[in-house]
Amino acid sequence: MHMASSSLWACQIHFLPYPARVNDESHSCFAPRLDKKQIEDGLEFAPKFDKNGLLAAVAIDAHTREPLMLAWMNRESLRLTLEKGEAVYWSRSRQEIWHKGATSGQIQKVIEMRTDCDQDAVILYVEQAGGGACHTGRNSCFYRSIHPGSPAALRFLQQND
Amino acid sequence: MHMASSSLWACQIHFLPYPARVNDESHSCFAPRLDKKQIEDGLEFAPKFDKNGLLAAVAIDAHTREPLMLAWMNRESLRLTLEKGEAVYWSRSRQEIWHKGATSGQIQKVIEMRTDCDQDAVILYVEQAGGGACHTGRNSCFYRSIHPGSPAALRFLQQND
Repeated sequence: MHMASSSLWACQIHFLPYPARVNDESHSCFAPRLDKKQIEDGLEFAPKFDKNGLLAAVAIDAHTREPLMLAWMNRESLRLTLEKGEAVYWSRSRQEIWHKGATSGQIQKVIEMRTDCDQDAVILYVEQAGGGACHTGRNSCFYRSIHPGSPAALRFLQQND
Repeated sequence: MHMASSSLWACQIHFLPYPARVNDESHSCFAPRLDKKQIEDGLEFAPKFDKNGLLAAVAIDAHTREPLMLAWMNRESLRLTLEKGEAVYWSRSRQEIWHKGATSGQIQKVIEMRTDCDQDAVILYVEQAGGGACHTGRNSCFYRSIHPGSPAALRFLQQND
């Protein structure tokens, strides 16, 4: 069986001699979910997508360790993120694959990825290119803190936060 | 109008002379969502809940800056988080308010909260009490890194990561 050679972050694809069936699990980057022990204590990546087919993905600046944004991935965007080594999300508003920075230049190069105990969320440590992660032009989408009260209120954080 | 006095993190409630209507917005900790300018550039906290009434909440260790867990909040748990100064989530599996640590002692004291540009996610910087954030006994739920391949694989991080 031939394996596609590629970068460290490539999600390698098996090339089979016959047309692959789309739903063939052997062509997936991901393991099937078996049981709690496999999911919580195992070394297989068996991500859980919600009933909309999505999981939450948090991008954190790999250097400053500041949270940059929270977005969504479906199975294909998660696969593409692993394949490209760049953050690829699912745009809930546009209902399409969103390779962040493909048009704006605000690419997020993935340095490290983590998943949680039940594998229904991922963290991406990224090098953020371009003006920043946020469409408002800020480095991070989390540019305001929340303060209790009646009603609760927001305050702008320092620009470099 | 009398305001309940309480700690910095109390979400203060107006006490009115007549029984309050449950859906009266004046009793909400949160502002109604008006327009993009208010939501992205304003100082009102007008959180957006998805069609299940939830938003994503990421807890980060206030001292180490390591991500601890990703969970969910509905309107009431977000209000309670602000009121108590401790993380209160919505358990999707149990379909109930989940005051984290109320029984286990793994309380998360909220040091700072942030929201993002469209106010549909929150970050909680917390002091984690007890054995750690994760039900598996680990400090963080994000104890494994993801590595591309066919299939992708996980590796355990150092315990103090």
